[in-house]
Amino acid sequence: MTLATIAFSGSRIDRADHIRQSPEALAGLMNHRARLLGLNGLDPVLADDGSLAWGSLADAAPDAELVFLGLSDERGCFAAVPAAGSVAPPNPRLWQGLGALSPEDLATYGGARSMVDWHARHRFCARCGNATSLAKGGWQRNCSNDACNAEHFPRVDPVTIMLVEHENSILLGRQPRFPAGNYSALAGFVEPGETIEEAVARETFEEAGVRVRDVTYVMCQPWPFPSSLMIGCHAYADDPAVTIDKNELDDACWFTRAQVEDAMRAAQAGGRGEAFGAPPPFAVAHHLLNWWVRRG
Amino acid sequence: MTLATIAFSGSRIDRADHIRQSPEALAGLMNHRARLLGLNGLDPVLADDGSLAWGSLADAAPDAELVFLGLSDERGCFAAVPAAGSVAPPNPRLWQGLGALSPEDLATYGGARSMVDWHARHRFCARCGNATSLAKGGWQRNCSNDACNAEHFPRVDPVTIMLVEHENSILLGRQPRFPAGNYSALAGFVEPGETIEEAVARETFEEAGVRVRDVTYVMCQPWPFPSSLMIGCHAYADDPAVTIDKNELDDACWFTRAQVEDAMRAAQAGGRGEAFGAPPPFAVAHHLLNWWVRRG
Repeated sequence: MTLATIAFSGSRIDRADHIRQSPEALAGLMNHRARLLGLNGLDPVLADDGSLAWGSLADAAPDAELVFLGLSDERGCFAAVPAAGSVAPPNPRLWQGLGALSPEDLATYGGARSMVDWHARHRFCARCGNATSLAKGGWQRNCSNDACNAEHFPRVDPVTIMLVEHENSILLGRQPRFPAGNYSALAGFVEPGETIEEAVARETFEEAGVRVRDVTYVMCQPWPFPSSLMIGCHAYADDPAVTIDKNELDDACWFTRAQVEDAMRAAQAGGRGEAFGAPPPFAVAHHLLNWWVRRG
Repeated sequence: MTLATIAFSGSRIDRADHIRQSPEALAGLMNHRARLLGLNGLDPVLADDGSLAWGSLADAAPDAELVFLGLSDERGCFAAVPAAGSVAPPNPRLWQGLGALSPEDLATYGGARSMVDWHARHRFCARCGNATSLAKGGWQRNCSNDACNAEHFPRVDPVTIMLVEHENSILLGRQPRFPAGNYSALAGFVEPGETIEEAVARETFEEAGVRVRDVTYVMCQPWPFPSSLMIGCHAYADDPAVTIDKNELDDACWFTRAQVEDAMRAAQAGGRGEAFGAPPPFAVAHHLLNWWVRRG
């Protein structure tokens, strides 16, 4: 498993932190060579060949806030924060377009989407309610109220997502919003005051009533809807009895290795297995299940 | 390494998510049996035996917002959000008091501190600037503006902290604020659009100019100042040449296994090794270094 095979990871843009810290260096990059990521609200604009479309800074609205994504071939790459009220719900055809992007483009888009979405939702200071403005190339927002002066930083939300194993079977669940017959790994946000391992144990017990032991980290994925860090883990359960939290899940049950293998083969081809439909290749749960199948 | 040995993890309070979701269940717990965590601003109030002091809900200011920490012995445990403007800078004697707490008390306090601090800094809606109010026992804040109605959730910031190894030596750095001669693991926030492994590689190169490979997860720690998730990793470097980012670090250099072993023995006794002063047992960097020493 290489990193680049996990969707939304593997961007080739150099984040160039030293540029963010220097207003002069940043201003020096905002020239005719700079590239502006084509966005329609939060959705990507695609070129004719299906890659991300890039324009120039002249394409941005004159008052648009610009996020410095980093350097590519010594050119500054930027994305414009959508105007207030212009952020539409995700386009249902979004996934189709994303499926055509190269892994590197997908990662660049995901990171940019999280950033401009965060700016669009953080125009005001959570501490005092006054307006904030973009700073450090978009890696900070500053409160405009001199009596407050709070600094705010882009947010990343750690989420645990876990394969729980018992006697060569895996516990999966389905949320009400899933297509019929589809199941995926249980997941939940890490809360203040707990470790990744504690969050895995708490969420598995909350959602399915199953106690786990021996939690191990497997892999992770940045997920740009809006800005999660999906932390993929594996754990064992001694007692397979399931008690479902019906507020969270429609169902949760155990699938055998043969059922998972069949579902993963089907998912690779965009279809559904005999026992259940597995998560698509975009999702880290797909990679976790593949990891488990290959691990044998 | 058991989880409970890492400071701020291992709380025994049951977070009881189902109670947060039910206004009736929550109201039913807010009775004379409920416990209120003793806080002086964000600092803990300690009982005569050095444990956390608990009072009753009657001890809270009449208009205080209350965070539901969870259940202990079927009693609701709460913490009050400090009044606006009452949050003082950390008391320099804070660490002394924390050092006397049991691991379970330390974890309970850390989680509570992160939560009430988040509430105190999020009284307004980042999307529209209007006032927010506490909801779901403190696990959410809701915007009061009907045209916005944004929901806000407590924040956890993932941070990578890494031991980089080259030929049986470890790369450590010192920030200007460290006591003279002290070194610790390099660290930095995970950004939108990158994996844990990518963040480790980026931060190590930014801060010390060192390229890494084979990043692996080792352990993590919730860090309540204000609410980080410290994700401890190990990586290898092939080229030990160091180029220090002087904006971030005073120094960064390699320490041999013998030097690290000596510093860890000294740190355990509260002292400094021959070559450098190691991070104290509160810090996950301390546990990472111990893990590396024991791994041999």
